[in-house]
Amino acid sequence: MRADYINPFISSLINTFETMLGCTLSRGQLYLKTGETQLHDVSGIIGLSGQAQGIVVLSLDRNVALRATSTLLMCETTEMSSDVVDAVGELTNMVAGGAKAQLHEYELSISLPGVIKGEGHEVCFPSDVTPICVPFTCEWGKLKIEVGLAEVRTLASTNATPALAAV
Amino acid sequence: MRADYINPFISSLINTFETMLGCTLSRGQLYLKTGETQLHDVSGIIGLSGQAQGIVVLSLDRNVALRATSTLLMCETTEMSSDVVDAVGELTNMVAGGAKAQLHEYELSISLPGVIKGEGHEVCFPSDVTPICVPFTCEWGKLKIEVGLAEVRTLASTNATPALAAV
Repeated sequence: MRADYINPFISSLINTFETMLGCTLSRGQLYLKTGETQLHDVSGIIGLSGQAQGIVVLSLDRNVALRATSTLLMCETTEMSSDVVDAVGELTNMVAGGAKAQLHEYELSISLPGVIKGEGHEVCFPSDVTPICVPFTCEWGKLKIEVGLAEVRTLASTNATPALAAV
Repeated sequence: MRADYINPFISSLINTFETMLGCTLSRGQLYLKTGETQLHDVSGIIGLSGQAQGIVVLSLDRNVALRATSTLLMCETTEMSSDVVDAVGELTNMVAGGAKAQLHEYELSISLPGVIKGEGHEVCFPSDVTPICVPFTCEWGKLKIEVGLAEVRTLASTNATPALAAV
């Protein structure tokens, strides 16, 4: 899989935060996730399928999640309530939707978002998929995105099962 | 959404454990997930899209995950290694794949599986989706499945965004 598939997710995330939240993101150095790395306090996760299969994880510091929710709802939010779950899910949905539009050659469709809570949680990918991680900072704190994507054509040609696909 | 969409996931899970692991599951009472409920030690998550959008979470006790991995690999596994991640992801993939075949009217496609680790983690769904949870026990310990699914036709007719879809 071409490593530049990450670019649409990066631009979609930056664009979503800028337009929906009026929040400018500063991008850190991207890296391949080769071992275990803990995520931030709350993470949205969404599945992608079509001519490629993948997962997108958008992970936010508690403060970023609270401030993003407050901005979206135009109402101060100080607890990790169902409003925060909906806001994080919706932001993940927008990021995945924006990237999907740019990756039209893969004819991607996206699942419902799930939102993961729990101290020190992490999302692991199948060992034959190497996700790309990109950290960001903003005035509210830290966030990052992890994306693993495998072309279905690659899977078919290697006769691997979808879950064990090589990128 | 019809509540009986859960049945294909239940039968697929029972069948997967029986045929792949020689492990007979005993089903508990299903319930609607209306609040926060912690999952077991390790959870596979997979996204569904097509004429419905959804998420499946298969959550396992540590011991169930280790014994399932040992059985699949025919090699004793005592640590939560990448082998366990692959095994839990593959089991989740099989459960979702089996259910997809029975829910052919929704023309579902499935994403890559992600595997969540972290003490006391939970997966929250958008507030307008009410997932169905089904607990199971087996000789190795406890496991459960959570499924949230929303018909795309319902979303379009209510003009809701996918992430905030009513079931």
